Amino acid sequence: MCPNTQKPGSESELVEMFKALFKPEFPPSDLLLGIGDDAAVFEPGVDPETKFVITTDMLVEDVHFRREFHSFYDIGWRTAVANISDIAAMGAHPRYGVASLASPHDMTTEDIMEFARGLNDAMVAFESYVIGGDLTRSTDKMSTSLTIIGETTGRILTRTGAQLGDVVAVTGSLGVSGAGLAVLQADNPLIGEELREVVVNKHLRPVPRVWAGQVCAGTEGIHCMMDISDGLGIDIGRLCRASRTGVRIFEEQIPIADETRKIAEILNRDSLEFVNSGEDFELMVVGDPQAVEGLMHFLSNHPYTLPLTIVGEILDEPLGMHLARIDGSVVNPSELGWDHFRTREQGNG
Amino acid sequence: MCPNTQKPGSESELVEMFKALFKPEFPPSDLLLGIGDDAAVFEPGVDPETKFVITTDMLVEDVHFRREFHSFYDIGWRTAVANISDIAAMGAHPRYGVASLASPHDMTTEDIMEFARGLNDAMVAFESYVIGGDLTRSTDKMSTSLTIIGETTGRILTRTGAQLGDVVAVTGSLGVSGAGLAVLQADNPLIGEELREVVVNKHLRPVPRVWAGQVCAGTEGIHCMMDISDGLGIDIGRLCRASRTGVRIFEEQIPIADETRKIAEILNRDSLEFVNSGEDFELMVVGDPQAVEGLMHFLSNHPYTLPLTIVGEILDEPLGMHLARIDGSVVNPSELGWDHFRTREQGNG
Repeated sequence: MCPNTQKPGSESELVEMFKALFKPEFPPSDLLLGIGDDAAVFEPGVDPETKFVITTDMLVEDVHFRREFHSFYDIGWRTAVANISDIAAMGAHPRYGVASLASPHDMTTEDIMEFARGLNDAMVAFESYVIGGDLTRSTDKMSTSLTIIGETTGRILTRTGAQLGDVVAVTGSLGVSGAGLAVLQADNPLIGEELREVVVNKHLRPVPRVWAGQVCAGTEGIHCMMDISDGLGIDIGRLCRASRTGVRIFEEQIPIADETRKIAEILNRDSLEFVNSGEDFELMVVGDPQAVEGLMHFLSNHPYTLPLTIVGEILDEPLGMHLARIDGSVVNPSELGWDHFRTREQGNG
Repeated sequence: MCPNTQKPGSESELVEMFKALFKPEFPPSDLLLGIGDDAAVFEPGVDPETKFVITTDMLVEDVHFRREFHSFYDIGWRTAVANISDIAAMGAHPRYGVASLASPHDMTTEDIMEFARGLNDAMVAFESYVIGGDLTRSTDKMSTSLTIIGETTGRILTRTGAQLGDVVAVTGSLGVSGAGLAVLQADNPLIGEELREVVVNKHLRPVPRVWAGQVCAGTEGIHCMMDISDGLGIDIGRLCRASRTGVRIFEEQIPIADETRKIAEILNRDSLEFVNSGEDFELMVVGDPQAVEGLMHFLSNHPYTLPLTIVGEILDEPLGMHLARIDGSVVNPSELGWDHFRTREQGNG
């Protein structure tokens, strides 16, 4: 709106710093043009079987992260993982990302670069690259946005396709991220340093299940998959609605780490709350029992030793959705979890 | 974070409304999966020559738009156009978009849908479709983000490649959007209703030059192209730095509409300020004089009658960047315009 003089820290100089940071060590052969023009360009010269998978997520300060808990690096990491996890949940491999940052005036150039480093490290860890973006000021809160395009020549696993007789399984353990957030929000001297570190680390640096997602998509008899980003309850509800089925989940079968249970006990919380607070970025997999058992064996015996645990079974749609609690009560799992448009308080999402 | 009951207006219900709104009238044959899963999927089954072009933009309340001036529909339209214009500036055609919205608590479901309608109308106008997105709450300001993937089997025109002897031309007329914003910010009884409407409409509903971009990319002798989103001055500076050239622009040659000049006169502003306030979303095209003249003839004689005007010439890099003003003075054009990280006041961008 008014004449500017060129000084250090201008948008163009930041773009130059991003170019250097995001430059792939070994540039993919199909990348024709990266950061710095009106748009980025790639020419996949594709196998006609190639499917492109595209997803986007926006993270907003005080909704998805809080600067008192999350460093700028953590925010960058989390922005990447939220998206990579969605690509993983389709059975695809992340390729390229375009990122946006709205930065408040109190963010310095170093803060912006720290955000970019967290973003880049998570992308590169999964062989994917930031090839473009948009940088703008915000008059108030910080927000970030990332779009990732992934690809696969194999099968895509959606939320649709669950069948009567299928079982529901989840990777890893659930609730660790929620326990970590709870510890950040309400620290307690009874929580030892070691215990604190386990759950807080998992909250701050979640890891998406990219490899497992591809294995699941390649396994016959697996019918659907999604990532658990908003909590087991609400997310199984979404899967069942998409597949037009019911479900029965058994609380006692849900894999909850000892650390999560200990935190719940100390903070006088129900560990199921943590399971439903989301952001574990584990995968939920539905398929026929033999296929799921084969997967369990394969995933847990691979050098990565990723547990896969059956937590329930698919029912006919008219039978509804049930979560059988350990105390004998039954609740509707789809009513547990995170819905931005229902819950008014700030927290994670 | 806490149990929710399903009520109207939940995230899932909004997603259903989006699905219905964004559904293409004639679904593209390569679109396998749209809104509602972890990610959207398309299988272009591609011509090995196909290049994908990807761009993203984030718009933030009180930086890129103000709710007192821009309706939710306008904000959606603007979000789409900012991105489509970048795709146009590469010579590509927009195909698919994924959009995000962070909505403050005072935005109603109807406000959200009005934003979505503006977004959808602009996308559909250029035969492109929203196939996914993310919806979240904001604790404060509204922000939007869109990523568009476009494609072309033809040539890509970047900002690099301007050569000594080339001329610089721009489509349409510059400064109308800036004049429109000025009228919105400081209305003046001397500005008649008709005059007001011309410039305000152009500001609120900009139109990207998709067709012209493709024509330019297909014209031999055209060497580079970019869209003018931050103002002629700063944007020609970016092009010259990318191409390692200098430039001389002649103010008297810049196409400025009579309406823009009248507004400048009434508001006692310099019309060059409007030219440099950006958001006209016109294209800047650089090429050898014969090629540009051929383009001028073609574009202005087509039923669309889009003017293309030569505004300057490319110089050797050591000669620097010059804007020859009508009053005889010379300024550096790259120091005029909008840089989010230099200008602290709120305005457009």
